[in-house]
Amino acid sequence: MNEFELIRRFFNRPPADGTVRLGVGDDAAVVTVTPGHELLLAIDTMVEGRHFFADVSPAALGHKILAVNLSDMAAMGAVPRWALLSGSLPDNDPDWLAAFGDGLFALAARYGVSLVGGDTVRGARSFTLAIAGEAPIGSALTRANAQPNDDVWVSGTLGDAALALAAMQHPATQYRIEIEPATLTALRKRLEMPEPRVALGLKLRGLAHAALDISDGLIGDLGHILNASGVGAEIELARVPCHPALKALLNSADRASALHCLLAGGDDYELCFTASPVARAALADLSRGLMLPLTRIGVITTQPGLIVFDEQRQPLPTLPAAYNHFLE
Amino acid sequence: MNEFELIRRFFNRPPADGTVRLGVGDDAAVVTVTPGHELLLAIDTMVEGRHFFADVSPAALGHKILAVNLSDMAAMGAVPRWALLSGSLPDNDPDWLAAFGDGLFALAARYGVSLVGGDTVRGARSFTLAIAGEAPIGSALTRANAQPNDDVWVSGTLGDAALALAAMQHPATQYRIEIEPATLTALRKRLEMPEPRVALGLKLRGLAHAALDISDGLIGDLGHILNASGVGAEIELARVPCHPALKALLNSADRASALHCLLAGGDDYELCFTASPVARAALADLSRGLMLPLTRIGVITTQPGLIVFDEQRQPLPTLPAAYNHFLE
Repeated sequence: MNEFELIRRFFNRPPADGTVRLGVGDDAAVVTVTPGHELLLAIDTMVEGRHFFADVSPAALGHKILAVNLSDMAAMGAVPRWALLSGSLPDNDPDWLAAFGDGLFALAARYGVSLVGGDTVRGARSFTLAIAGEAPIGSALTRANAQPNDDVWVSGTLGDAALALAAMQHPATQYRIEIEPATLTALRKRLEMPEPRVALGLKLRGLAHAALDISDGLIGDLGHILNASGVGAEIELARVPCHPALKALLNSADRASALHCLLAGGDDYELCFTASPVARAALADLSRGLMLPLTRIGVITTQPGLIVFDEQRQPLPTLPAAYNHFLE
Repeated sequence: MNEFELIRRFFNRPPADGTVRLGVGDDAAVVTVTPGHELLLAIDTMVEGRHFFADVSPAALGHKILAVNLSDMAAMGAVPRWALLSGSLPDNDPDWLAAFGDGLFALAARYGVSLVGGDTVRGARSFTLAIAGEAPIGSALTRANAQPNDDVWVSGTLGDAALALAAMQHPATQYRIEIEPATLTALRKRLEMPEPRVALGLKLRGLAHAALDISDGLIGDLGHILNASGVGAEIELARVPCHPALKALLNSADRASALHCLLAGGDDYELCFTASPVARAALADLSRGLMLPLTRIGVITTQPGLIVFDEQRQPLPTLPAAYNHFLE
């Protein structure tokens, strides 16, 4: 099977809608942006051994490479539309590729996203996906407009994926955390098949002042909002929503590791956003409507800097560092 | 230097024009597509050891990863606008990155392209660039509309890059071809810093029936036009434009290797297109205006299949195979 047959067999599926005039198979795809809308563009890469294990389920991987990009669209309040995929593959194992494609296209179908082009090369396994979406002119959410006295909100629970990853480490490593097998099964799904908060992002247009998705941990990512907006924040640790297993670990000998999972673990793919206190009732309604917890964890301050108060209202003396791709 | 500092230092430069409302530094870029235009999307990856040597000039590499994507826009007759770059890097050597950025942004500036987002991961060196461009609705060139009796045209000269690559092989390998050092210097520039034919592509709107860029060799890529259009073609080898050094090799003991460079070598990044014979005068004018050779090399036929006639008007019994990423 050569490159063209491979693309045709696994990745050339009918587009999701009539916005695609020309999809996979030419030098470029040709699509139509809705009049009155701006175009949103993002890209993300996942590399074996760094973002996923060699033995990960290919369907989960196909899901995740799209999910992390959909999460960027969600963070902007954009409708995801078109994707381009570049895959570096050590072989062209048809079973693996079919499962990867199934995972990717199942998620794409749920969000009306069309894969409109791609590229394959031989090499160590990695995937890069570029996503294009749209939003009415001027409506996209950014990181730059958080206002003093805004509430700071997060969706879902944080630290699930990081706790799963810690529990999957070799017993001899210092990062290993022990959890119940049934709990690991649930948390591992959060690590391997994150659900992008696209519907939430769309509803936050006009409600949130600033938003982003938490991919590198709450501390670091909230820091981006604070820097971009020229403000600070005070967060209450006890309010940060997490799985009961992680909550229990916060009160154990593993507290330091648990804090790291919760505040700096990465791979959450929840949204963090700020909104006026006036929006609280609307956000409570939204949470019920989406059946997705939205939790108020703190407040934006005029004074720059991020303070996390512990359960006794004492500031944490040091904050766990965000994941850094070049500090390992 | 962490990931964010790295991006800010080397890849966060002012956008080329007012189409970019939000560039590098948020979850996604926000840009404006010109009303009445369609959006064109493409992606390409280059991997060390496969698409470039480990010791290639970083400035040339920065140029080329953008050039190959601009070539896709050229093939569609689109104006390139916005780029997303994902880099996998073994280290964060500032000199290397600065030179890479200089090469990329120099070419971007010439074509008015803005780098609006990206991602960095640590790993074996590779780059994936996604490009977005635009063309008036319905005007994009595709591979699918070649008509019987169309002339088949190519821009520039073919085989230069492949000949340079063959000359750079180790003397012991079977693919090695000997050429003069001064000739190699000229051809190596074609391999390492190809010039995308963007201006030509734009002018071909309304003139060409079908077009693509030659990245995997004339035979294979023209074959895509033939397949997409349901037609065949007859090509005259003696008309296929090439460097004098390659022309000389066609009449030497290295003829087989020279034929491979010319017809299947890859990395040409010239345009191949078909047009009615009525367009010949307009294309001659265009060639003069762009100071770029445009050469008529054959004709589209009703009968499917591709025949290449040699210098004695005899069909070549076998055609060199196109480069295949999964056949090595």
